[in-house]
Amino acid sequence: MVVVMEPKASEEMVQDVIKHLKEMGFEIHRSDGVTHTILGAVGDKTGIDIRQLEVLEGVHEVIRISEPYKLASRSFKRENTVIRLGDVSIGGDEVTVAAGPCAVESEEQIMIIAETVKKLGAKLLRGGAFKPRTSPYSFQGLGEAGLKYLRKAADKFGLLAITEVVDVGHVPLVLRYADVLQVGARNMQNFMLLRELGKVQKPVMLKRGMSATIEEWLMASEYILTGGNDQVILCERGIRTFENYTRNTLDISAVPIVKKLSHLPVFTDPSHGTGIRNKVIPMARASVAAGADGIIVEVHHDPDHAKSDGAQSIFPYQLEELMKELRIIARAVGRTL
Amino acid sequence: MVVVMEPKASEEMVQDVIKHLKEMGFEIHRSDGVTHTILGAVGDKTGIDIRQLEVLEGVHEVIRISEPYKLASRSFKRENTVIRLGDVSIGGDEVTVAAGPCAVESEEQIMIIAETVKKLGAKLLRGGAFKPRTSPYSFQGLGEAGLKYLRKAADKFGLLAITEVVDVGHVPLVLRYADVLQVGARNMQNFMLLRELGKVQKPVMLKRGMSATIEEWLMASEYILTGGNDQVILCERGIRTFENYTRNTLDISAVPIVKKLSHLPVFTDPSHGTGIRNKVIPMARASVAAGADGIIVEVHHDPDHAKSDGAQSIFPYQLEELMKELRIIARAVGRTL
Amino acid sequence: MVVVMEPKASEEMVQDVIKHLKEMGFEIHRSDGVTHTILGAVGDKTGIDIRQLEVLEGVHEVIRISEPYKLASRSFKRENTVIRLGDVSIGGDEVTVAAGPCAVESEEQIMIIAETVKKLGAKLLRGGAFKPRTSPYSFQGLGEAGLKYLRKAADKFGLLAITEVVDVGHVPLVLRYADVLQVGARNMQNFMLLRELGKVQKPVMLKRGMSATIEEWLMASEYILTGGNDQVILCERGIRTFENYTRNTLDISAVPIVKKLSHLPVFTDPSHGTGIRNKVIPMARASVAAGADGIIVEVHHDPDHAKSDGAQSIFPYQLEELMKELRIIARAVGRTL
Amino acid sequence: MVVVMEPKASEEMVQDVIKHLKEMGFEIHRSDGVTHTILGAVGDKTGIDIRQLEVLEGVHEVIRISEPYKLASRSFKRENTVIRLGDVSIGGDEVTVAAGPCAVESEEQIMIIAETVKKLGAKLLRGGAFKPRTSPYSFQGLGEAGLKYLRKAADKFGLLAITEVVDVGHVPLVLRYADVLQVGARNMQNFMLLRELGKVQKPVMLKRGMSATIEEWLMASEYILTGGNDQVILCERGIRTFENYTRNTLDISAVPIVKKLSHLPVFTDPSHGTGIRNKVIPMARASVAAGADGIIVEVHHDPDHAKSDGAQSIFPYQLEELMKELRIIARAVGRTL
Repeated sequence: MVVVMEPKASEEMVQDVIKHLKEMGFEIHRSDGVTHTILGAVGDKTGIDIRQLEVLEGVHEVIRISEPYKLASRSFKRENTVIRLGDVSIGGDEVTVAAGPCAVESEEQIMIIAETVKKLGAKLLRGGAFKPRTSPYSFQGLGEAGLKYLRKAADKFGLLAITEVVDVGHVPLVLRYADVLQVGARNMQNFMLLRELGKVQKPVMLKRGMSATIEEWLMASEYILTGGNDQVILCERGIRTFENYTRNTLDISAVPIVKKLSHLPVFTDPSHGTGIRNKVIPMARASVAAGADGIIVEVHHDPDHAKSDGAQSIFPYQLEELMKELRIIARAVGRTL
Repeated sequence: MVVVMEPKASEEMVQDVIKHLKEMGFEIHRSDGVTHTILGAVGDKTGIDIRQLEVLEGVHEVIRISEPYKLASRSFKRENTVIRLGDVSIGGDEVTVAAGPCAVESEEQIMIIAETVKKLGAKLLRGGAFKPRTSPYSFQGLGEAGLKYLRKAADKFGLLAITEVVDVGHVPLVLRYADVLQVGARNMQNFMLLRELGKVQKPVMLKRGMSATIEEWLMASEYILTGGNDQVILCERGIRTFENYTRNTLDISAVPIVKKLSHLPVFTDPSHGTGIRNKVIPMARASVAAGADGIIVEVHHDPDHAKSDGAQSIFPYQLEELMKELRIIARAVGRTL
Repeated sequence: MVVVMEPKASEEMVQDVIKHLKEMGFEIHRSDGVTHTILGAVGDKTGIDIRQLEVLEGVHEVIRISEPYKLASRSFKRENTVIRLGDVSIGGDEVTVAAGPCAVESEEQIMIIAETVKKLGAKLLRGGAFKPRTSPYSFQGLGEAGLKYLRKAADKFGLLAITEVVDVGHVPLVLRYADVLQVGARNMQNFMLLRELGKVQKPVMLKRGMSATIEEWLMASEYILTGGNDQVILCERGIRTFENYTRNTLDISAVPIVKKLSHLPVFTDPSHGTGIRNKVIPMARASVAAGADGIIVEVHHDPDHAKSDGAQSIFPYQLEELMKELRIIARAVGRTL
Repeated sequence: MVVVMEPKASEEMVQDVIKHLKEMGFEIHRSDGVTHTILGAVGDKTGIDIRQLEVLEGVHEVIRISEPYKLASRSFKRENTVIRLGDVSIGGDEVTVAAGPCAVESEEQIMIIAETVKKLGAKLLRGGAFKPRTSPYSFQGLGEAGLKYLRKAADKFGLLAITEVVDVGHVPLVLRYADVLQVGARNMQNFMLLRELGKVQKPVMLKRGMSATIEEWLMASEYILTGGNDQVILCERGIRTFENYTRNTLDISAVPIVKKLSHLPVFTDPSHGTGIRNKVIPMARASVAAGADGIIVEVHHDPDHAKSDGAQSIFPYQLEELMKELRIIARAVGRTL
């Protein structure tokens, strides 16, 4: 940490800041410049609120040098984290596609979609059983029955099952059926849930909150990592901006940024990231071109009658076309699919 | 709902849309203009995803006429909701002040602050026991001990206790100690928690999410209201914008907007809304001037040593000054304090 | 400036950074900590792009210590700038109100409104003659005729005239008629125009751009100040956020922030800042409560037939009510009106 | 336009709205539903402020049916606009690359870079002569000398020259030297400048403002198009969001959106869109993958000593690598390069 004093800070003020820094456990390197006195605070502290120093008299600015996250950082672990699930590797050379309906609606529906998803080369089958909906009047999912159908479909077609967990109390239930647990954007800072998932032996896909900075997102992953679960997949799903032609703005630049800051695999969700069917495909291509380790995409054989998010679900023939294009783009960036 | 067809939409397309609307349970009023055909869809439906219609062929635009929330709406209930807790009325003529530390740190600390808070005229004592922190390395609160100290202090000085509940599993515990339960910004769309609070007999203060639109915020309140708990207080606490001089931008315009759309009381939290001590006071004044029913503000007798958010906590002497100013401003807008 | 090196930066890298800093004219204070080497760069440089240093090998972070603006800064000038125009003082103890129609529409219209504005106690008469409109199909103003009518009305009722200048080529023309020149939000970074206004002997009101940070806004004022014109009034008029219930979100927190960073007077424009008539009044009150030196507000005797922005213009009787409320609030914050 | 009346609107209120609509020149289709009366207003009007109707008593909501822009719309012109400049076609099957330094710094510099740019297959040479800089203390460009060097370099290597014009007064000068005129993000709503460029016979690249909605951007292009100049290229260059790891967030989703709404070619500027060298390449790839008609990218042979934006300029070897990748990606989306 570096504390820059005001030009007119008195020696008394400088000493007061030094006292505070020492109380916090730092070692101090002082440097008196022509105008400013600068205090370098050395020590491996985390969880400090730098504003506590900023409000001290005579302090001009306080700069945190090290990132507030550790286990998620590339300084902590240089090589990419590769998550292995049977013969699927997430975060390695291969680009991974997860596909399926927004919500599991019936056994028949998930079976039809799973068959297509498998045939077209996706490795994970997505499908929600507990749906966190903006409106209390909307379809809220099939609950445990949905989980059962999802598991059955995944098993039948040799796919991995990924589904969302929305509450601490549901973790044991979802663990029984899913291969990968998903934390939705609205729960990115549900710290109780994150802690619980830190104790789990299965991979967790952590979606970025709609207004979360990249730093906050990595801090949220830190809650899972510090619990002992190092299998975290990050997933960008659109941030909120002033533009409202699309529901959200898929922040593709987050992909190269996070790949640099962290060793964790990064996916995007172009379905929630745009909210409109005909924008899903170009944004999926753009994600892989930007270096994403995978995408999670909504597909439905009859989106007109989907119980949720039909408007952003692509048709099977569109997924087929997309897979072809992604294979070429993956090659252009030195990956396979 | 109004569906506007494309200028070149065929009769077949129009009939297809009509079919969908009927399936959804609407009655249709058709109007053929010179360029556009317009379908008025009449019926009291909620929880419909209008994008389902937008993706139909030949549809130009779909416009939802009624708000997606009901119980929270002023069309549903014209008079202001006034919440009575003993001799305190929230949402009536009086402007209510809730004050206290960010976190309960010890029995002594909360006692000292409660005494000041009472003396200066605030009616609610705030203090967190379970702290949702961005970093897993930061102070996470005293847990149940914190709740006990808060209750004790509130009782001793004749104040009402307000504190945050962060998880469904904690609701019974927090209910035992608090008079008002608070839902934090990060949990605004934790729908499991909201549903649980719908069953509770005590008032709930629902903070606005950092990137929540006003509509989403009112929809979140709807989750509590539909459960049967009509004692909801809304609280604006800063939204995320590109400006980063302050942590968040306190959206004071939300106050008059929500007062028009809804009958629920509206507070602001200038402490979290700015994150900097010397901005708290002007923004508190501005909130009351804009018509807020109350404010919730962080105060600490020794903010330099506060375990969380010290930098945004005001000193007791500042609260004293603020209360004086607020009394004058309240009068200017036809309120008392 | 402070350059923080990476933990593993080699001595060669450190020397390379030192070489660059010296080329830029800085004197260097080096401090080798346990993990990081920190270079304090001392010297009074402006206009440096710190990213030039950030991309050097081994550099962890570069922190600018001094604000990039000078003449606008409170470090440069501690006392408030007070602009005197006849018996009107802007930025002193008094809160100043500027009022009038969005656009001058006819001699009769501006005369009617000017009379009201004067009677109710406003000191400046606003009215646009050249209107920058989002659509080329909208009313674009009366041009010079508008300026003439504005001047005539101001003279008749003893008011000061404020109007917008939209292009370098128009400056001499507008100077002939106006007492205060206004730069609109869309032109906040029209640097050619700002430079031109730096040579002018009349006050300039500089509106904040819809997505301008406070730092960029102060930098824009610096373009005027460095030209020799020290009569700059800053005006917050709403920033763009994800919330679209209102056209813009009036950032009232900008008022106390700018008052701390700069000595220049700060106004708000609650009419453009909200875009809806019934939100103008609460936001005007909130602005004064937060410490604004004045407001600029749109008023029209017949807003239903206004040629532009009628929907956000208040009625004369509303201005009357507002002036009363503002007088009480001004007193609460130690000002007069 | 559709006007939806409040459930409790009286017949008098309905008649008042009808009167207003007729005054505006609309023909009215009335439809009385169970709860709401809906008025369809038919007529080809532009430049109407719908808020004028929204404030009328009894009005619930007013919905504009047609886009406020016309000439830029795909409803107006279905086939893509292809701009031909010698043997270069912009907006056709081919993806076009414009490359060069941020600013022309000397004859030698632009010659060195032009040679590389040509060799690597770019078709346009970019280079600024008048630089609109946030700080008045930063390098402001070489002015006319810069234009001369740019022209000379473009001629020598058979490239087209693109450069920014910042003021109405500069248009004739820039026209003398450039093949394509660029309007920067800060000038996107400098309507005087846009009108002037409507009279010009050369293509104009219109950058999106940092906080401009897509609709406003298309409206700005309408100012040029209505003047008679139909050669407009749109360029997305990053919007402002809360994330500040990058200067701006390149909104790649704007590419497929604008391609659908408009017939005009769409470029992206990944250099300004990210502001950091190592993010430029992934975002350039993503742009082409999303369907952009071209990119404009900053390249410098010695970015360490560039007078502006060196930190976001890529090295020639990086451009070479990028061109190879873009060729593969272009093919994947059915284009050539």
